[in-house]
Amino acid sequence: MSRFAEPQDPVFRRLNSSIAFDWRLGPYDVEQSVAHARMLAAQGIIAPSDRDALLVALEQVRGELEAGTFPFHEEDEDVHMAIERRVTEIAGPAGGRLHTARSRNDQVATDLAMFTRAHAGEAVAGTGRLMAVLVDLAGRHLDWVAPGYTHLQRAQPVYLAHHLLAWFWMIERDRRRFAAVTLAADRLPLGAGALAGVNFAIDRELVARELGFARLAENSIDAVSNRDFALDYLAAAATCATHLSRIGAELVLWSSEEFGFCEVADAWASGSSIMPQKKNPDAAELLRAKAPRIAGHLVALHGVMHALPLTYNKDLQEDKEHLFDAVDTIELCLAATAGMLAGIAFRRERLAEAAADEFLAATDVADLLVRRGMPFREAHGVVAGLVRAAVDSGRALSELPLTEVRERSELLDDEYYAVLRSASWLESKVSRGGTAVARVREQLDRARDALDAEPSGG
Amino acid sequence: MSRFAEPQDPVFRRLNSSIAFDWRLGPYDVEQSVAHARMLAAQGIIAPSDRDALLVALEQVRGELEAGTFPFHEEDEDVHMAIERRVTEIAGPAGGRLHTARSRNDQVATDLAMFTRAHAGEAVAGTGRLMAVLVDLAGRHLDWVAPGYTHLQRAQPVYLAHHLLAWFWMIERDRRRFAAVTLAADRLPLGAGALAGVNFAIDRELVARELGFARLAENSIDAVSNRDFALDYLAAAATCATHLSRIGAELVLWSSEEFGFCEVADAWASGSSIMPQKKNPDAAELLRAKAPRIAGHLVALHGVMHALPLTYNKDLQEDKEHLFDAVDTIELCLAATAGMLAGIAFRRERLAEAAADEFLAATDVADLLVRRGMPFREAHGVVAGLVRAAVDSGRALSELPLTEVRERSELLDDEYYAVLRSASWLESKVSRGGTAVARVREQLDRARDALDAEPSGG
Amino acid sequence: MSRFAEPQDPVFRRLNSSIAFDWRLGPYDVEQSVAHARMLAAQGIIAPSDRDALLVALEQVRGELEAGTFPFHEEDEDVHMAIERRVTEIAGPAGGRLHTARSRNDQVATDLAMFTRAHAGEAVAGTGRLMAVLVDLAGRHLDWVAPGYTHLQRAQPVYLAHHLLAWFWMIERDRRRFAAVTLAADRLPLGAGALAGVNFAIDRELVARELGFARLAENSIDAVSNRDFALDYLAAAATCATHLSRIGAELVLWSSEEFGFCEVADAWASGSSIMPQKKNPDAAELLRAKAPRIAGHLVALHGVMHALPLTYNKDLQEDKEHLFDAVDTIELCLAATAGMLAGIAFRRERLAEAAADEFLAATDVADLLVRRGMPFREAHGVVAGLVRAAVDSGRALSELPLTEVRERSELLDDEYYAVLRSASWLESKVSRGGTAVARVREQLDRARDALDAEPSGG
Amino acid sequence: MSRFAEPQDPVFRRLNSSIAFDWRLGPYDVEQSVAHARMLAAQGIIAPSDRDALLVALEQVRGELEAGTFPFHEEDEDVHMAIERRVTEIAGPAGGRLHTARSRNDQVATDLAMFTRAHAGEAVAGTGRLMAVLVDLAGRHLDWVAPGYTHLQRAQPVYLAHHLLAWFWMIERDRRRFAAVTLAADRLPLGAGALAGVNFAIDRELVARELGFARLAENSIDAVSNRDFALDYLAAAATCATHLSRIGAELVLWSSEEFGFCEVADAWASGSSIMPQKKNPDAAELLRAKAPRIAGHLVALHGVMHALPLTYNKDLQEDKEHLFDAVDTIELCLAATAGMLAGIAFRRERLAEAAADEFLAATDVADLLVRRGMPFREAHGVVAGLVRAAVDSGRALSELPLTEVRERSELLDDEYYAVLRSASWLESKVSRGGTAVARVREQLDRARDALDAEPSGG
Repeated sequence: MSRFAEPQDPVFRRLNSSIAFDWRLGPYDVEQSVAHARMLAAQGIIAPSDRDALLVALEQVRGELEAGTFPFHEEDEDVHMAIERRVTEIAGPAGGRLHTARSRNDQVATDLAMFTRAHAGEAVAGTGRLMAVLVDLAGRHLDWVAPGYTHLQRAQPVYLAHHLLAWFWMIERDRRRFAAVTLAADRLPLGAGALAGVNFAIDRELVARELGFARLAENSIDAVSNRDFALDYLAAAATCATHLSRIGAELVLWSSEEFGFCEVADAWASGSSIMPQKKNPDAAELLRAKAPRIAGHLVALHGVMHALPLTYNKDLQEDKEHLFDAVDTIELCLAATAGMLAGIAFRRERLAEAAADEFLAATDVADLLVRRGMPFREAHGVVAGLVRAAVDSGRALSELPLTEVRERSELLDDEYYAVLRSASWLESKVSRGGTAVARVREQLDRARDALDAEPSGG
Repeated sequence: MSRFAEPQDPVFRRLNSSIAFDWRLGPYDVEQSVAHARMLAAQGIIAPSDRDALLVALEQVRGELEAGTFPFHEEDEDVHMAIERRVTEIAGPAGGRLHTARSRNDQVATDLAMFTRAHAGEAVAGTGRLMAVLVDLAGRHLDWVAPGYTHLQRAQPVYLAHHLLAWFWMIERDRRRFAAVTLAADRLPLGAGALAGVNFAIDRELVARELGFARLAENSIDAVSNRDFALDYLAAAATCATHLSRIGAELVLWSSEEFGFCEVADAWASGSSIMPQKKNPDAAELLRAKAPRIAGHLVALHGVMHALPLTYNKDLQEDKEHLFDAVDTIELCLAATAGMLAGIAFRRERLAEAAADEFLAATDVADLLVRRGMPFREAHGVVAGLVRAAVDSGRALSELPLTEVRERSELLDDEYYAVLRSASWLESKVSRGGTAVARVREQLDRARDALDAEPSGG
Repeated sequence: MSRFAEPQDPVFRRLNSSIAFDWRLGPYDVEQSVAHARMLAAQGIIAPSDRDALLVALEQVRGELEAGTFPFHEEDEDVHMAIERRVTEIAGPAGGRLHTARSRNDQVATDLAMFTRAHAGEAVAGTGRLMAVLVDLAGRHLDWVAPGYTHLQRAQPVYLAHHLLAWFWMIERDRRRFAAVTLAADRLPLGAGALAGVNFAIDRELVARELGFARLAENSIDAVSNRDFALDYLAAAATCATHLSRIGAELVLWSSEEFGFCEVADAWASGSSIMPQKKNPDAAELLRAKAPRIAGHLVALHGVMHALPLTYNKDLQEDKEHLFDAVDTIELCLAATAGMLAGIAFRRERLAEAAADEFLAATDVADLLVRRGMPFREAHGVVAGLVRAAVDSGRALSELPLTEVRERSELLDDEYYAVLRSASWLESKVSRGGTAVARVREQLDRARDALDAEPSGG
Repeated sequence: MSRFAEPQDPVFRRLNSSIAFDWRLGPYDVEQSVAHARMLAAQGIIAPSDRDALLVALEQVRGELEAGTFPFHEEDEDVHMAIERRVTEIAGPAGGRLHTARSRNDQVATDLAMFTRAHAGEAVAGTGRLMAVLVDLAGRHLDWVAPGYTHLQRAQPVYLAHHLLAWFWMIERDRRRFAAVTLAADRLPLGAGALAGVNFAIDRELVARELGFARLAENSIDAVSNRDFALDYLAAAATCATHLSRIGAELVLWSSEEFGFCEVADAWASGSSIMPQKKNPDAAELLRAKAPRIAGHLVALHGVMHALPLTYNKDLQEDKEHLFDAVDTIELCLAATAGMLAGIAFRRERLAEAAADEFLAATDVADLLVRRGMPFREAHGVVAGLVRAAVDSGRALSELPLTEVRERSELLDDEYYAVLRSASWLESKVSRGGTAVARVREQLDRARDALDAEPSGG
């Protein structure tokens, strides 16, 4: 019996009901209830026979949810009510004991923490799979020469593996962030009741152990008001999606006829409804477009929490759809990136051609002058003069005769031309983390180590 | 036959496919195709018999979509392909002529513009319904005295109708904004082809007339790249939702025991899973929580469009879910606000009691001094002194004896006590737009006029 | 005299004070005060001599603000207090009468509306100047052939003017939006007092006329609570900035060695600190990067307004910095875009070369089949087969012998080769808004008309 | 000498120059250059005499920056160029050697990482100071009875300390997050050069040690492209600001006449320009309004990074202002919250009065029935009936006679009335983390331990 005289307005029901999305919490809700029922019996709060009836009913519900045969009703407002109703249908009056020493407030916070922890773990795995693809890809393109860009202008040549490993380290940081989220979601809210704790001598540690929570939420008011772990997940996912958008943007660019550095497999491209010649890198474009979606969810959940008085407010129902869609999006995007990259074909000669641009050796000419004693700033000016002379007269740097070169600086001699031959450019970048092939090889080893390491969440 | 040798990867299909959400464009797509087929025949590009076959098939598709019997297939990538496939099943080879002189790029832009225009119109209607509820509510609470707040501190008394009409004008601006969106979406993209126009002498004006577009998109490149109308809708919806969040926040506040100014109907409240005494204003809380959701969609679509080279890119597929969810959310929120307010009960005595706080007359005492010749700043200081004396000694302003009052200023006399009697406070606010009851009555008339006026979109 | 016993905490002062940014409202505050003082005297609320003293003092303040000699004090909390203080220093006790029948709440709302209206007008002018540059640029590159892209893949050739005019129409919509903002900010708040109106028989219409407001805010509560016009400005600016980011992104792309379609003038590029050969399109990159900044301000102001009870709350102080920075950013970006484009050099041969890619005629071959009676879908399949045959064998479409071509369809003959010659591709796009040169010429005329038209704000 | 023939356009200079904000990096830039110069000499890349000249000059620059006497020039584009110019003025030609084996790309990334790490550390300290204030405040209000709310409806009584500790744990998580940021910023970018590493045998480990970086960025391309640490800071700051907005919102609410639970000190309040009686909790309101500002910066920086190809692009210049403003905002807000709370006065009797509402014991009556064997759901229904009977007849629950009570359930007896006496409600919440005073005392001890613990960043 409710204290209300009137039934709910249909528009209100539509606004208020969460069953259309929170059904996803079903399996977590069952798992939680199993642990809760066991603890209630262990503490003597319910009888063993009630516990047994509850466990049988919950097991059946779990099966129905998995099989897709769970009978949702029109009047089920949320998944928690639906499951309790169903448990009562199966277990009879014992079903009414399941909600003892529990409130929907701590119940939903617990389900959501479990969901977040599970999917943060899934994202750790998904980033790991992408890291593995990248390590493999880098290993297969170790000494392929490619142009490096700043401002989308060719700047200095690098090995393709070096560029692919730059992607690797971005994703490695993402994995670390998702691992930290699993820790952020490891404090058990259950036992906080509506907000003040419960009237029974429950054993929260026992429940925590059963459900895999490392710690307890220390304050019942905070426990039902807190959604930090969801924000943490969204922040990690937004940064990861931003990384994927950068990878996607480069793949779109490199797939253009103008760059021509790679071709995605047919299985990852689509055609045009009217232009039969087109092979469009749709997956890469969508990686680009999904990042703002997750950032939008993040800013929206910040907005939901903004200025919200403690403790539980209905506003908190708006945490779920943002989180769920972000989870689905990032998991799909990680899988798509891994799949697309696993089958991508790079075009060695196009990369080498773009990297052979002689102007890319300009810094190296300046450094030659430095090694011969000229201050860097002055050397930079000398080479700028050479570049301008070359550009203005439509010649390559190596086409400037030595006499003209030496007018700029007496320190230059035939080694000027030697430096302009490309192999030397790459191999002279010997600083740790640089592009000399020995350095890239070392880096690849470090990447393999990082891949194998357990992400610490630190 | 596709130019691709491999089938699409299942993960790619999942990322790439839009049928799970763009089925909503189905009715618009059919309407567009009807107009397109008629025009093609009118221009002699297809035969009358082909047109007739197409129209029959499209009519059947329309019926199937309405009845929910349209046979979607696994391999339908988007609603446009699904409908064309179905038309061809029904009409035979003639179905293959439907895409003549059209590309998916201009087709989808046209569907989306039609969708946006229709739902902007629906929002105009929805805001109008809420405005009508507010006008009615204001009319029924014309001279109920209520406290007005600044900084959530009681500041000056007002009539409740005056406050309700403040809500009215917010929504009136929203209606104006949605009306402007209908104009922003009134330029026909169709005829732009993939990006450069089409190879046929089509008649875009004819199609525009049939579909209710007032104008043509003037540039084919822009036509397929442009989603401004969706941004405009989202901006209008975000501001409207922000307004509703302010109304929601006030209703939550006013429903608290501490304020006690109103009670939502049972049909718009919910109870607690463990606290039987609770009557929670969930609908008002959800109004509060939905605003960041729409602002999130707005910022996300800005993000999708950010730095996107022309013309069509697959990224644009990410326009739809943001728009669709915003449409559903704002339409539901507008209906919920109207429904909740239609049945709300205000508590006259609680409002009056809160408005009777004597300190609310402080400005009026200062203005009394001004009318007697004291500069306002000085008068403000005199009254601040009186307030401090009263607060420090735990007395009301009217409990200060005249001698003590006159120590602050000789200009004060018995009228000081008269001013402190509350009726005078309200009725002295005679400036246009102020809270004197005659002014509120005039304002109510203006509100009724505004409600009846056709929103111009200006 | 304040009612408070303690001085403000320095940290609180730092948080609370707005003088560090709201000094920008100074000129508007003076203008408003002039109109207010005149009205007070006209209504007999202050004496003519007081008015005259106020006007003299205000005139002096205006001069001091313009000259940068206005003496700001440590304890000035905001610009309104600073000006009133200074007026009182100059005018003596009459200065204390300036705040009669006015509150800081309606005062600041009025200043901000004036500021918004003025800068929306400035943005109308700035977009207009950019439109003029684009019309001129399009006129100078009318028949330059360029590739059109979808998915960043070459799709169909267009004239460069056609692409430049696509930019034009984006900015034209922006101008329209800014014009609408001037209307959104044309309702005078002044006279609303703190929230309830004022105790004096003021003449708001008179003030509105003097300050150039077309209408009055109809409700005093709404007048001091409303910041819609600032949201409207930010929404318009965010969309405009998003457009500029798309232009910037294309210029970055086109400036790359790979595309090589344009070169920004030296005056709009910068070099590298260590790579003397670099010419970086920094301005174009910054256009790209500034759009999220303005979108961030928009979502932030939505956040500030979110769930805010009426009427004035201190939170509203957070409207200014978002608005001011958006104004500065968009005005600078518009000027930079116009300046950079005015001096840009396109490279005709590189554009033509990219547009000569024969695959770009694939649609046109399909349309040839359509004109000969084949349904479009079937034609699309035939041409897809030809493309695949060409790609697989490393030949151009025109290198396929007629016998091989006719194996795909008997409807093909020598016109197949004719269609593959590029001029025909462009000139066959005869639909209105298409790229045929006659159509582009018409479009340019329409653009010139649009440029000259007064933006209606509709 | 530059390779450019024309001087920069003034509008471009204004857009491009960052000196107006990046001067804040000055001290970090000097510190970095000192370490860089020492390393160059240690590796034999520059002469000891050049090193000494550089160190003397850098020391002078450091002093000038601290004293505010550093001579910025019109043509200084950024702080790095300004410092190098100044060093050269002081040190002569040796100044030109400072940029050896370094690029502005790795230099600016290093400065920014140093800045981020330093201010993350400052935020750790600031959150710690606030935690200390909260622990002290909780200790001083340990057994003050206060109402706990859900849906802003009184739900269950709690001790005020319990509520204050809920705030504590929010901030404790923030401290942990900021500590994690210090780790995210502990990889040295320097040595990455422009993007590919440098041509000299530098010792990055040496530089890292001098500058306090724990690790090296492993990939030079990633090192100059990565701004994750700035995103991490902004995410931590946004969540912290959201927490402060919740505290601020509650203080605004509690400062209202209706709630009347607290009063901020005069030093933390402000008055009204026309209402002398007002005492406004401006600081609390501004806490509320600042959260969206930081969330706006976060979403903006995500936007800047969105789809950005590697490596350095000028867009990255847009990282600084977002970060700097977030740093200033959160540091000020933390200090303001601590200051305001340190001086706040709670009103014991108003809190107790609100907590004495008898309906708050409804759950406890239901739990009494549960302890007597009734399933919870049934008990909930019984009490709902009692509540409705009381509300409908205007009586308190304890005013219902026992006969009427027992009509609802035979399990009820005199203990029903005992439960309704308030002390028992609080003390029965014995679950860990609950509000029984012994539990709160334990929690306070845990909070003190947490405060003293070094935040691990985990």
